[in-house]
Amino acid sequence: MIIEKMNYSKKMKAVLFDGSLRLVSDYPRPLLKPDWAVIKVIKAGICRTDIELIKGYMGFKGILGHEFIGVIEDTIDKSLIGRRVTGEINVSCGKCAMCKMGLKRHCYNRAVQGIHKIDGAMAEYCTLPIENLKIIPDEISDEKAVFIEPMSAAAQILTQITIEANDTCVILGDGKLGILCAWVMTTVCRDVTIVGHHENKLNAARWNGLKTITDISEIKTGVDIVIEATGSLSGLTDAVKICRPMGIIILKSTVASKIEIDLSIVTINEISIIGSRCGLFDDGIGIMRNWKDMPIERLITARYPISEAVTAFEKAVQRDSLKVLLEF
Amino acid sequence: MIIEKMNYSKKMKAVLFDGSLRLVSDYPRPLLKPDWAVIKVIKAGICRTDIELIKGYMGFKGILGHEFIGVIEDTIDKSLIGRRVTGEINVSCGKCAMCKMGLKRHCYNRAVQGIHKIDGAMAEYCTLPIENLKIIPDEISDEKAVFIEPMSAAAQILTQITIEANDTCVILGDGKLGILCAWVMTTVCRDVTIVGHHENKLNAARWNGLKTITDISEIKTGVDIVIEATGSLSGLTDAVKICRPMGIIILKSTVASKIEIDLSIVTINEISIIGSRCGLFDDGIGIMRNWKDMPIERLITARYPISEAVTAFEKAVQRDSLKVLLEF
Repeated sequence: MIIEKMNYSKKMKAVLFDGSLRLVSDYPRPLLKPDWAVIKVIKAGICRTDIELIKGYMGFKGILGHEFIGVIEDTIDKSLIGRRVTGEINVSCGKCAMCKMGLKRHCYNRAVQGIHKIDGAMAEYCTLPIENLKIIPDEISDEKAVFIEPMSAAAQILTQITIEANDTCVILGDGKLGILCAWVMTTVCRDVTIVGHHENKLNAARWNGLKTITDISEIKTGVDIVIEATGSLSGLTDAVKICRPMGIIILKSTVASKIEIDLSIVTINEISIIGSRCGLFDDGIGIMRNWKDMPIERLITARYPISEAVTAFEKAVQRDSLKVLLEF
Repeated sequence: MIIEKMNYSKKMKAVLFDGSLRLVSDYPRPLLKPDWAVIKVIKAGICRTDIELIKGYMGFKGILGHEFIGVIEDTIDKSLIGRRVTGEINVSCGKCAMCKMGLKRHCYNRAVQGIHKIDGAMAEYCTLPIENLKIIPDEISDEKAVFIEPMSAAAQILTQITIEANDTCVILGDGKLGILCAWVMTTVCRDVTIVGHHENKLNAARWNGLKTITDISEIKTGVDIVIEATGSLSGLTDAVKICRPMGIIILKSTVASKIEIDLSIVTINEISIIGSRCGLFDDGIGIMRNWKDMPIERLITARYPISEAVTAFEKAVQRDSLKVLLEF
């Protein structure tokens, strides 16, 4: 009770969306709940999902942010205080059919940090269950660590399908997630190509033999693995067109919109379309430890102090922007 | 040369579609080509695909029919003459990338019996490469054997996904293929339900614990495996709705039509949508041998002599019809 009163009396800066986006400085600091931790945020990334949220996606209202690193400020296990952490974004109930199957991130009753039901990390302090926190290895810098969440989402692909070294892979979309997916795929496939329309993003993407093209017509049909990461699912028609019979299409775009599509070719060619959202942070961290020269910092377009959060969002929505970071 | 001349001089009855559907009696008998066989047809089934073909699907013109049994009339290996056979419908080139990968039925240059490029089996004689023919075990009756092709298409599902005994499975669509898929699934899953709108078809479908319902709203969400076999892909929206996170949707419908659909839930719930067309005949035959009491004959609505082929098609298109057979 004393802890709660102490915390509650304190205010903090936070990036709030409640129909309009703004910085507030009098948001109550999160209370310490049993089995949760309060984290002092160091950096937070602006994700494509955040940009969709301020357009009304999910109907979310509250503090934005689900890509962050910080230091544990308080929790029941005092040995954890001061540790540098990031956090898995899905907060599960532990009781539903999905949780009982071990699919906690698909919990039917889940809250998602800064996306659904609970406040996010674009604030001086945030809070998550202890079980969601991952201690960041010293060898991973603060700036790289902000990418653990999207890197895990990219690494998730490797857990969903079997991949052969000689498989060809095409990634549609040169956004942050598209580039991370492409980099992850270059670590397992010989022939990986990313298709995009932004010269600066394609320049940033060139690493580990990744090929970059601007026109999908350059791709011969018969691709083994196609990753749809255009951000709008509009690329699915293209994906179906270039995928080989019995090939695989990974769907990474989550933005809700109805598309008109002829899927009969999916049946005829026995194509697999596999939805892929977020992955285990251990996998994202594993990729970063195994591939220390992966040029993750190239994906940072700009850095802003939290006081300039609204400007940071304006920057993030620009067509040429990759990752925009908020610093605390 | 002598053989060719002999054959060419002979005429046969055939069910021809060249913009209109009709029985002709002066169609030239197929010539014997090297590595092929000429088969005297005993029975042929009218498939949903045939009905689509006479609406213009695939732009096919020629003799219809790809579900048949017959007796080998002539081939280079004289020991095969007189054997009772059916045939795999995809005739492959043996040279393209798909053939070299061992995916002959996805051959880029394939012809498909009675569907694409080559004549089908609704005639007194048909012809296929020897490698496409399967000798029918004596224990499988002529009428059951006509179902080897669609049974193999149903059995294909078992080769594409891993299935657990406790998985729940829902089949959307009570057509012939839907029922065969449902029966195959009852052999591996404890809890299989078929959804349809035809009382007589659902009555025919009841076997091996298969549950039948007419209203999809009776299904609680969270189905492990959903099979879309409505014949129009229109069921995909329903399939996505009832499929559990990380569940599987099998797409069986091949009829080309644009659908409007929101696929973001496929990404969010990490659902796999797997196209499934036709399977290896050994698998279909294996199912029939392992499950001798599977009531396949129940799926036969009517039998017609080839002289009444047009009437048979009129019967086959009726809403309540299941399989209509042509007899020679």
